[in-house]
Amino acid sequence: MKIAQIQMKVYPDKEKNLKEVEMYLENMKEENPDVVVLPEMFNCPYDKTLFEEYSEEEGGKTWSKLSELAEKYSIYLFAGSIPEKVDSGEVYNTSYIFDRKGNQIGKHRKVHLFDIDIEGGQTFIESETLTPGKDLTVVDTEFGKIGLMICYDIRFPEWSRLLSLKGAKVIIVPGAFNMTTGPAHWEISFRVRALDNQVFTVGTAPAQDKEASYTSYGNSILVSPWGKIIDRMSFEDGYIINDIDLREVEEVRKQLPLLKHRRTDLYEIKEK
Amino acid sequence: MKIAQIQMKVYPDKEKNLKEVEMYLENMKEENPDVVVLPEMFNCPYDKTLFEEYSEEEGGKTWSKLSELAEKYSIYLFAGSIPEKVDSGEVYNTSYIFDRKGNQIGKHRKVHLFDIDIEGGQTFIESETLTPGKDLTVVDTEFGKIGLMICYDIRFPEWSRLLSLKGAKVIIVPGAFNMTTGPAHWEISFRVRALDNQVFTVGTAPAQDKEASYTSYGNSILVSPWGKIIDRMSFEDGYIINDIDLREVEEVRKQLPLLKHRRTDLYEIKEK
Repeated sequence: MKIAQIQMKVYPDKEKNLKEVEMYLENMKEENPDVVVLPEMFNCPYDKTLFEEYSEEEGGKTWSKLSELAEKYSIYLFAGSIPEKVDSGEVYNTSYIFDRKGNQIGKHRKVHLFDIDIEGGQTFIESETLTPGKDLTVVDTEFGKIGLMICYDIRFPEWSRLLSLKGAKVIIVPGAFNMTTGPAHWEISFRVRALDNQVFTVGTAPAQDKEASYTSYGNSILVSPWGKIIDRMSFEDGYIINDIDLREVEEVRKQLPLLKHRRTDLYEIKEK
Repeated sequence: MKIAQIQMKVYPDKEKNLKEVEMYLENMKEENPDVVVLPEMFNCPYDKTLFEEYSEEEGGKTWSKLSELAEKYSIYLFAGSIPEKVDSGEVYNTSYIFDRKGNQIGKHRKVHLFDIDIEGGQTFIESETLTPGKDLTVVDTEFGKIGLMICYDIRFPEWSRLLSLKGAKVIIVPGAFNMTTGPAHWEISFRVRALDNQVFTVGTAPAQDKEASYTSYGNSILVSPWGKIIDRMSFEDGYIINDIDLREVEEVRKQLPLLKHRRTDLYEIKEK
């Protein structure tokens, strides 16, 4: 499975962001990616005062363009996230997933909202303008099941565990850690979620933009089921593309059977 | 809270191992440690064919000596682990915990047994000669609650989570990763369990002995609730002592309220 991760710059101009996505897909098409992942909030500056203004309903302009691009390039498109507006006026941080024909095969609304207030560091209260989702997202592909969550969702070991118990062999995470949490926690979070669940983890972030009100750490990352970094970017915009073999999941689980060794006679993570 | 971690060599001679513990406690007494942690299987070579031969009942010779030492040096002694035999003939990998008066205030029997068979790496089937425990171990001290688990228990995010939900602000883990799993997973496991639960984690391992049938990775480690390494040893025998402030747990939880942000309306880890 050839997986591409696009660490793009995010501009205030929505059209420009969509053109950027198309340009990346055009540039990488000779490499034949099967799966392409965009960053969190790839067509809206990561600023809580702008989420509503930039939001669109499902089936809107951005959605339609993404569907068209998935079909045009015959890829599974895990379309980062955008602010999604619903009739009742609420706004979600939502990731749409399209298959090679451009059909939506799943969507994820960020479940855990990022409310943080670090002394001398970052303050960001996402829940002031966003509503949290409530569903686990796992989709079927020709390669096997793939789970999706968004950024802060990765902080909660329960969520990755539930995705892997639902059969996900890859967990894709559009995210945007910042310059406080990024250097401290980004890499080890992706490595340990991969390792604990023996899945591939895929973190895709916007490129760093020092003029933005929220500075993304970038560092898009791909980790193996053994917790090993397969590839990793720095702060700049660009993309990486890697060929991964999902059979590695079964191989690692055979050698170090962590999921089997869970003491389900003593504890269990229950969905409600 | 001054916490000492003893990364000792383990000899085939039980008496010698107990003398070593006493020597370390004598050497560090001017530094006034409050809590002292020994490694997993500190008085039995880590060899599954020897666990039964080296095993003792609770209250036996090793237990008595440890109790005596805790009282003599007025320390909380988290006494690594030893093979514990029970009347029915079963053997557990057990850690005893003593208070400053030498009273046993808790004990932990390793819950997750280490059965691994890595291609071109380590093979070790602990469950062939050991019986797994079933209880969560959290003890009260004058500093607050401290949780204890043993080595492979750290692989399971559910277990650390349950300990922290029971109030543990420090999770102590006598362990002995090997030269395959150690370099790959030891550090990130301690960092992410600390980070996810916003507790201190304390890994204490035997020193490396290249002639042993099982080669310990050593690398005893102390990690803050922010996931930062406070101190770390290498392969050699010796000890480290650090002064930690358990108020840091509350400070980190205030700034980045991960435990509060769990979506307990959607999932919960249930004990059975």
